[in-house]
Parts: sequence; C-alpha cells; structure tokens
Amino acid sequence: MHYPGSSNPPQYATLRQQLRDIADIEAILAILSWDRTTYMPAGGAVDRGRQSATLQRLLHQKATVPELGELLDSLQDFEASRPYSSIEASTIRIARHDYQRRIAVPSEFTARLTEHQIKTYGDWARAREADDFKIVQPALEKMLDLSLEFSSFFPQAQHPADPAIARADRDTDAQQLRTLFHHLRSQLLPLIDAIRASATPTSDALLCQEFDITVQQDFCRKLIERIGYDFKRGRIDTTIHPFTVGFGTGDVRITNRAFSHDLRESLFSTLHEMGHGLYEQGLDPVLSGTPLAAGASSGMHESQSRLWENIIGRSRAFWECCFPWLQGAFIRQLGKSSVRDFYAAINTVGRTPIRTRADEVTYNLHIIIRFELELAMLEGKLTIADLPEAWNAAYQKDLGITPTSDLDGVLQDVHWYTDRIGGQFQGYALGNLIAAQLYETALRTHPEIPVDLERGRFSTLHQWLQSNIYRHGCKFSTMELLERVTGRSLQVEPFISLLREKYTQLYRLE
Amino acid sequence: MHYPGSSNPPQYATLRQQLRDIADIEAILAILSWDRTTYMPAGGAVDRGRQSATLQRLLHQKATVPELGELLDSLQDFEASRPYSSIEASTIRIARHDYQRRIAVPSEFTARLTEHQIKTYGDWARAREADDFKIVQPALEKMLDLSLEFSSFFPQAQHPADPAIARADRDTDAQQLRTLFHHLRSQLLPLIDAIRASATPTSDALLCQEFDITVQQDFCRKLIERIGYDFKRGRIDTTIHPFTVGFGTGDVRITNRAFSHDLRESLFSTLHEMGHGLYEQGLDPVLSGTPLAAGASSGMHESQSRLWENIIGRSRAFWECCFPWLQGAFIRQLGKSSVRDFYAAINTVGRTPIRTRADEVTYNLHIIIRFELELAMLEGKLTIADLPEAWNAAYQKDLGITPTSDLDGVLQDVHWYTDRIGGQFQGYALGNLIAAQLYETALRTHPEIPVDLERGRFSTLHQWLQSNIYRHGCKFSTMELLERVTGRSLQVEPFISLLREKYTQLYRLE
Repeated sequence: MHYPGSSNPPQYATLRQQLRDIADIEAILAILSWDRTTYMPAGGAVDRGRQSATLQRLLHQKATVPELGELLDSLQDFEASRPYSSIEASTIRIARHDYQRRIAVPSEFTARLTEHQIKTYGDWARAREADDFKIVQPALEKMLDLSLEFSSFFPQAQHPADPAIARADRDTDAQQLRTLFHHLRSQLLPLIDAIRASATPTSDALLCQEFDITVQQDFCRKLIERIGYDFKRGRIDTTIHPFTVGFGTGDVRITNRAFSHDLRESLFSTLHEMGHGLYEQGLDPVLSGTPLAAGASSGMHESQSRLWENIIGRSRAFWECCFPWLQGAFIRQLGKSSVRDFYAAINTVGRTPIRTRADEVTYNLHIIIRFELELAMLEGKLTIADLPEAWNAAYQKDLGITPTSDLDGVLQDVHWYTDRIGGQFQGYALGNLIAAQLYETALRTHPEIPVDLERGRFSTLHQWLQSNIYRHGCKFSTMELLERVTGRSLQVEPFISLLREKYTQLYRLE
Repeated sequence: MHYPGSSNPPQYATLRQQLRDIADIEAILAILSWDRTTYMPAGGAVDRGRQSATLQRLLHQKATVPELGELLDSLQDFEASRPYSSIEASTIRIARHDYQRRIAVPSEFTARLTEHQIKTYGDWARAREADDFKIVQPALEKMLDLSLEFSSFFPQAQHPADPAIARADRDTDAQQLRTLFHHLRSQLLPLIDAIRASATPTSDALLCQEFDITVQQDFCRKLIERIGYDFKRGRIDTTIHPFTVGFGTGDVRITNRAFSHDLRESLFSTLHEMGHGLYEQGLDPVLSGTPLAAGASSGMHESQSRLWENIIGRSRAFWECCFPWLQGAFIRQLGKSSVRDFYAAINTVGRTPIRTRADEVTYNLHIIIRFELELAMLEGKLTIADLPEAWNAAYQKDLGITPTSDLDGVLQDVHWYTDRIGGQFQGYALGNLIAAQLYETALRTHPEIPVDLERGRFSTLHQWLQSNIYRHGCKFSTMELLERVTGRSLQVEPFISLLREKYTQLYRLE
C-alpha cells in the first residue's frame, strides 16, 4: 500500500484519538500526584489513593485493549512508508513499544506489586525511625521476589535486570552498563585519590552561614526565570523531595527545597529541577497528545538536570555572571567574598555516605555501588539478609568510608522500597556522562558558550539544547539521539576530561 | 424476594463498585478544577481543557451505560425491602435519580452546550470590558434557545424552568418558588422601608480603613480553625471568586479573598465558605464512594454557608467572643472601638445594585429579581434584547435604584453566561430561608446557643448541625430533611422574624 504524504489512513486518526485519551489520563494522574505531594491535606490520603487507583485502572484498560494492538498492526505498512523520524512513524513506533510493554505485565501482578509497594514503603519508614533494617527485611525479600517475577514476563531478557533497565533507559542493558561503569570507576578512583592527596585547603564554610529561606527562594525563582524557565508555563513549589512534572508543554512544574544553613540545597536543587523543566517546556508542541511528548529516557532527562546543575551551575563562568546577584541577595553573608571563593566552596570534594550530598566527582561511585548490588541481588548472588553488610563493604572499598548506621547505608534511598529492585539507579550516572558528551559537542559548535555564560547570555546553550534535544521528545532512544547529536556512542571520556580539567585547576593537581 | 438484613444481593456489590468509580472520577474532575483556579499557570489552559473534557467523556460513558440502568432495575425489590433512610435504599434511590437525569440529556447536546458556554463566557468578558451588553446579546440569545432545548428533554415538566431548578434543588419547582418568593418580597419591602425611614445613623467607616492582607488571612484561618474547620482535612487558598470543593470528607478545600480597604470581604467570604466546608467535612464517612456523599441541594448547601456567614457571623453574640481577637490583630485600626460599634458597622443596610455586596435584608430581592427574569425569558415573555431594560426596571421597582451601567446590571453575574438560563439563583434565597428555619429549631433544642457563642463554645451549634444535617449527605431531599429536622415545610417566617428582631433593635424601629 502506498500513502501519499498528504493523506494519512483513517486508522491513524483513530490511533491518534486513542493515544490522546491515554496521554490525557496520564497527565491527570500526574496532576493528582503533584497535588498529593504539594498541597493535599493529610486527611485526603485514603480517598486520593483510591481515586488514583481507579484512574490507573481505567488507563490500563484503555492502553491494553486488544483493538489498540490490532490498530497498530494495521498501520505497519503506513509506518514503513514514512521516514523513521516523521511524527507518524515515530508515534506508531513508540505507541507499539508502550503497548507491548504494558500487555506483557498481567494487571493482576501490577495490583499485587502496588499493594506490596505501599506495605514496603511503610515498613521502610518504620525501619528508618528505628534505624533497624530488620524491620523492612521481610518486605524487601518479597520485593526481590516480585522484581524477579516482573522479569519473568520478559523471557527474552538476557539478564533479570534488563526489563527494568529497559523501562527507564530503552536501549541499554545490564551487560553494557556493567562494562561502562567498570571503565568509569577505573577512571574516577585515581582522580579522587589525587584530590585527596592534594594539599590545597578547601572549605564550604561560606555556604554554611544562616540564609533566610524566603530570600533564597525568591533568588532561585528569579535566577531560573532569567536563565529561561517560563513561569507562564510553569511554577515552583516547595516539597521535601524536589521533582519536576509536566502535564503538557504549557504546564511544567518544578519543586525545590531550601535549608537555612546550607545555601547549596536551594541553589542546586533548583538548577537541577530547572534542567528537567526546560526539557519538558521545550518539547515540540506538535507532539502533544502523542506518546512522544516526554523525555527520551531517565538517563537523557537526568543529563539535562545534571548539565544545568553541575556543568553550568558549578562552573566559574556561570557564577562570574550570577555571583554578584547572589551577593545582592545576601550582602551580609557574601558581601566580602569573591567569585573565586564561592566557586571553590561549591566545588569542595568530600567523603559522604549520602548520595544526594555527594560532589560531582564521587557521585557516580554511589550509583555504581547501587547498580552492582541490584545486579547481585537479581542474580541470586546476594541475599537481602546480607545486603547491609555488602552495602557497607562496597562503600569502604570505593569511597573509603563505612556508614555508621543503616540510615546512612542501605536504608538511605527510597527507590527499592517503593518501586522494584532493578533499573533504579543507572539513569543518574548515565545522565552525568550524557551531559558531558552533549556539552562537549555544544562547545564544538558554540565555543563562545563560556564567555556567553559570563555575560548572562544563557540562551546560546539553551537554544542549542532546544534544537538538538528537547524538541524531539522521545522520538529517538537515548543512544539514537546521542549518535545523531554527537556523532558517537556513549563515552566516558568527555565526563572524565571535564572533571580532570576542573579539579586539576581547583586543587592544583599534578 | 426477601433479603435478610445481613446479606445484600451480589448486584448491590456490583452497583457499589460502579458508583465508586463514578464518584472517584467526579472527585478527580473537581481536583482538576480546583487546580485550574488556584495554581495552574496560564499556559496550561488548553491542555487542561482537553484533559478535563476527556475525563468528562469517560465519566459520561460510565454513568450512562445501559448495564447501570439494568442493575438499578434489578435492585428494585431489594430497595423496597430496606428502610427508606438505609444506606442501601438511599444509594439505589439517588443513583437511579442521577442515572435518569443523565440519560435524559443526549451527549451530543451536552457537547454543543459546553462549546457554546465557552463562547458565551468569552463574549461576556469582552462585553464587560466594553460595558456593552450588545456584544454578548447574540450568544445569550442562543443560550436561551439551548436552555429551552435542555428543558425539552424533560417533557413531563410543568414549567420550562423546572428541569433546571430540579437539578439544583431536587424537590422544588417554579410554581412553588414563585409563590414563596412573592410572599417573601411582601414581607421584606415594608421592613426595608422602615429601615430607610429610620433616623438611626449608621456607618461602615470602621471597616474601610487599611488592613494588611496577610494579617487578615492569618486571622481568618485561625478563626475558622477555632470554630471547627479541620485543617488536617482541608486547606484555604485565595482566588478571585471564593468557593468550596470536597474530594471526600478527608479533603475539603475552601478559598477566600481579602480586600485591603474593606475588612468585610475576608471575614464574611471566609465564614461563608467555612459553612460549606463544615457541611462537606461533616458528611458521614460511610457515604464515601456513593452518590450520597454530597450536600442535599444547592439550597441546603447555601443554608449552611449563610447560617455561619449571616445568622452567626453578623450576630452580636459571636462578636462578643471574637471581636477582641480581631482587635488583637488590628489594634491600631480597631483598638478604640467597641463590639457595639463593630456590630453596627457590619450590619449597615444600604442600596447597592450589586448582589454580592448586598446586606442580609435586601439580598433576597436581588435573587427574586433574577429568578423572575429567568422565568419570563423561558416563558417567552421577555426577549434577550429587552433584558437590560427589564433588569433595570426591576431594580428600580424593588430596590429604588437603577444601575448606572450594564456592568452593575445585567452583566453583573456570570451564571447565565457560563451555564444556562434557569435554576441559577433560587438556591441563594432558599439558603437564607432554610438557615433561619434550622436555626430556630436548633435554638428550641439548645436555647443556650447564643450564650455559648459569646463564650466561644461554637461546638453546640456545630454538633447540632452535624447530627441533623451534615451527616446525611444527600440521602434526603431538602424538603424531606427540613420536615424531619424542623417538623415543618419551608417557611418564610423564621427568616423574617430573625431580621425583624435584629434590625428593630439595630435601627430602633417602631
């Protein structure tokens, strides 16, 4: 069959309508979740849980109905007749991917998993209160069983972690990541050793004075507005755990948090979420109502947040422009300091057992440790009973510290206790690597970016990201997009060389 | 068939499940609407409109599916075997009422109406900007046609306004209300004349000083918390048009607004919405997920807001307790005034063409005027072209004033321009009458209420309303509930005698 460019078959219109309904329901679920986290009174929890579950069930029905599969089958010729990157072919391709992903998992299993997630989350909260992993151990054991059951629905998977990894980062797998992370670790460890051996004194005391929370929040809001976050199509609120959520390109909301005695928290949580927010605000509006209106993957999304948070937000050039503004907000605390002092203070490298407090250099080690523990658990090489010890041993080996309690160890992150084991962490490390590789390419096209940053011209980089990344949504997989934009597969080197250059200068290494 | 008390037929469980889904979707639509009005950025409007419409369509499908009608039919014997006020019989009764109401109106019509409502609202906004009724006249003419078309779906109706009236206030109709309002007007006019003829000087100057908005909002929040509004199951936000919305008894939200130069706005909009909020927070939690978890009618709901706003909120007893607190918040502005001054200031009777600024005495005349104009339009006795003149003539006749422009006249209220013509206003007047009749009965059981109010014991009245009104939800119609609680049908006298007593004393009449 041949379809001339100007006319689409009627089944395609039907598909678009069905996909639009699915996208609308997904957006509504996201609104419910945003509200639950920001403004819902505590008393609303029970009803809200049921309301979300009802809508989730309707979504599942709509998204797994056999007619949708038949519709997608009937559109194979049409898909083949259109260019790979066309909105039509991409819509059908991604819709099929989503459909197959959804029908693979029985809804009976999803219901059981959801119920167990709620229980495990509760046990985790109690375990944290008592600082006693044993309280959540039985629930986590069952969670491991459920995670393996989940894998079993994808019999073609090479590794039990692969189905979970594929959900987050479509075209990667355990084997590839294991190799990549092995290489990354081998590059990081000597750099960390060199920094630790350096005699250059560093201190973050400048950032640990008292800073009025309201002034911090006001500054952060104005800063990201100045960079390019559009408040007519977004807003910022405060939550315990910062996040970004979009309900369409016209309504992309971020949250942050601020600590009165550590200025970093508000600045970098805001820049991080702004990065996610710029991505979602930058999706091509024609993708609206299709499954393409989302970031390419968890890794690609994280690359956008880490790029603004770290590569830009912890750069000298950025603060050459923005530090005087920050001084204006906190004259008493920062009025006598130089950009150089501030730049050094935000880039101190320390040893913390806490992932979210880690600096740029050691952060990926926290991820690699978690990733490898996940693989070991799923491979049956590590029992949940032995997990706390294995966690601590890994921290001792890679970071030279042992958490003093499970609170700072195995109970630290919520991920395993609220979702599944597998595929939870690789996106963070991928994000760091992708960000560096993209930035290297952006600099090749626009070597003026650092000078532009110093002058407050944030749009050079923002527009490059807009044209090369944001607008495509998830039309391309992470690796496809990376190849298209940088001409290369995923590399460790751009990240390592960025770090080397920066920290050699900061710590006067070699 | 006989169903022993302890076991319900399986169809009843199926019905409950279907009704729970319907209630959940209705709650989600309300959450979307709350968010749209409070925190949604402007850029979200288009997507949000589509998302809500999608969910509305799903709701309509679920709520009008023929299987639901068959299920209700199959439960007739079971319903008859249970007491009228049992949750089972009431659930089936109200579900049938809702089902029949919904299937009566073709969804094709609803779609056309919704589209025209959006257009008319836009034209109304432009007409207001230009202060020119002619801009919205054609749209309003079509709205009248659509309102008549709506009536035509209910061929058994005695009057074309009856179907719309029945939606808001289940067991009233145009004929009954016309008689009631005729009597009400005849009682009000002499009272208003007497007040106008009074030589007692009155002034609201005390309330028109400058009052810090933040302090007002803080005071209002604490005041309603002290009265009994539960912030663990609610919240208050600021919007242009205050409203109340519940998503279950655990999450009932109100909004208010404050003016810096008129203290009344925040105080009375908050007490008004608190009245609605206490009603929704007080629904029996076992009604959750059934169609009974709502107020009995628009009139009954309004009675609860007007009771707290006016009967309590403009009473001397209430402010004997609360005025010192208000003085504490505004020592400079109120520190030299007495409760007596304040009580007089909040009860000044004036002549305003604006319904929402009207005092307790004249308020109902604003409603009666609108109600009678609605009837005349639907009866074909008044054309839209003649509406502005008819509006002004009615104001001149009843209130002795002619609005100086359509902005203060026919363009004043949004109702006709955003919903339909018919059934829009009677609930406000019914609310005032019902509130007085309920309060009279409450006083008979608890003559100590005024003294309790003076001492800050708000719970006597609150608990009486809880046991007699709130908990029943919409199990009973307004008139059924009124009969049950007060032993009488709806009367004008309790309202009139409350006003007479209060204003005779305030204005030293007779």
